[in-house]
Amino acid sequence: MTDQTHSYPVDGTNRVKRRHDRGFYDHDTVHKLLDAAVMAHVAYVIDGQPFCTPTLFWRECTRLYWHGSSASRMLRNLSEGEPACVTVTHLDSLVLARSGFNHSADYRSVMAFGQARLVEDPEEKLRALTMMVDRFFPERTASLRPATTQEIKATTVIVMDIDRASAKVRAKGIADDEEDYELPIYSELLPVRMVMGAPEACARMPGGVNRPATLAPYREGRLLEEALTEAYGMAYGAATGA
Amino acid sequence: MTDQTHSYPVDGTNRVKRRHDRGFYDHDTVHKLLDAAVMAHVAYVIDGQPFCTPTLFWRECTRLYWHGSSASRMLRNLSEGEPACVTVTHLDSLVLARSGFNHSADYRSVMAFGQARLVEDPEEKLRALTMMVDRFFPERTASLRPATTQEIKATTVIVMDIDRASAKVRAKGIADDEEDYELPIYSELLPVRMVMGAPEACARMPGGVNRPATLAPYREGRLLEEALTEAYGMAYGAATGA
Repeated sequence: MTDQTHSYPVDGTNRVKRRHDRGFYDHDTVHKLLDAAVMAHVAYVIDGQPFCTPTLFWRECTRLYWHGSSASRMLRNLSEGEPACVTVTHLDSLVLARSGFNHSADYRSVMAFGQARLVEDPEEKLRALTMMVDRFFPERTASLRPATTQEIKATTVIVMDIDRASAKVRAKGIADDEEDYELPIYSELLPVRMVMGAPEACARMPGGVNRPATLAPYREGRLLEEALTEAYGMAYGAATGA
Repeated sequence: MTDQTHSYPVDGTNRVKRRHDRGFYDHDTVHKLLDAAVMAHVAYVIDGQPFCTPTLFWRECTRLYWHGSSASRMLRNLSEGEPACVTVTHLDSLVLARSGFNHSADYRSVMAFGQARLVEDPEEKLRALTMMVDRFFPERTASLRPATTQEIKATTVIVMDIDRASAKVRAKGIADDEEDYELPIYSELLPVRMVMGAPEACARMPGGVNRPATLAPYREGRLLEEALTEAYGMAYGAATGA
């Protein structure tokens, strides 16, 4: 359950400076946008060079977890705790206005800041590896071939307590200068959305293996973010996902 | 036109280390993935703190341009030329395998590295402001209310010559350990795609203003990346978009 009464602290790092009317810092807004996504972009620095890496991630309370391999450059660097910025973006539309200046896009994004570190404690790591699957596909790990020692060793999990975070939301569609509306210029909103295709069952399954009911959130034509949000609620319920 | 015979140089920064079989460096692969997107995530560093910012962007030859405001923290810092990493990600599916370890996603991503700087030359800036609209909506700027001096001043454009870049592509769907296929475990591929909704014409247009033919790439139900790729070809043609 998210929390409308708590907010992330605001300072020079996460304050939404440009278009500050679009900025939100409350847990409720920030967490809902995070829990509606499967992929984040993580920024980190090695020897002054910034890297921006796409990765699967998930939230637990005010922590973010994400996945990598012991071999990746990011994780080698993060093992001792490194500043990172985790960003999630939902694009909602393109806005064709009557001036170039008012062309825009509707979107909802979150930037979360903190110190990222490797999950090294064996118990914490096993639990994270379970949730890496079960957050998206509730209760699925219990039905899988168990992880081998080598697989656990070869999978790396990163965790970051969110120190500061901000959400930025534009949801106003076409917004031209008042005097421009009477001009004979075509203007429109182009909605976009991330949609699910039809699930494709593996052709190599033995007979009698059926799709588990826990995958019900994922069905053809549905918004991916709705499926992810529903699955999140199933996986974490009202207690631990706060 | 993209170029199958040229590649970006490879060094420790852009080499795909983990899963190197998924790495590509040729202009053709990298540019096609860039031109199929409207949004990138840009990583940059201020006083050791990484930031990851979503932004509209476009490509011209081996340059990337993106948009911001003079007020944004990123641009203040980038005015003198700062290392940046621009990442574009297309998510294609979620993969539910028979072990946690083989759970995965199909995706196509690009990471591009270089020194980002403000576009300050007035002529270069005007041309960039035109292409910021026309790259997505061919020939549109000519039909718009002209930009004011104040608008031009208030809009900031960033440019980055791509020094190094890599594409990373996973497109193999379910890939379990051979001995796991006979297990009675449900496995499936969940395709996802960014789709266009029905364009919504502005309700405040004067009578007789029709949708221009140049917006034909954008139509309901189409993949956004197909529309963006088609519009890119219309805007840049075979000559300048190389």
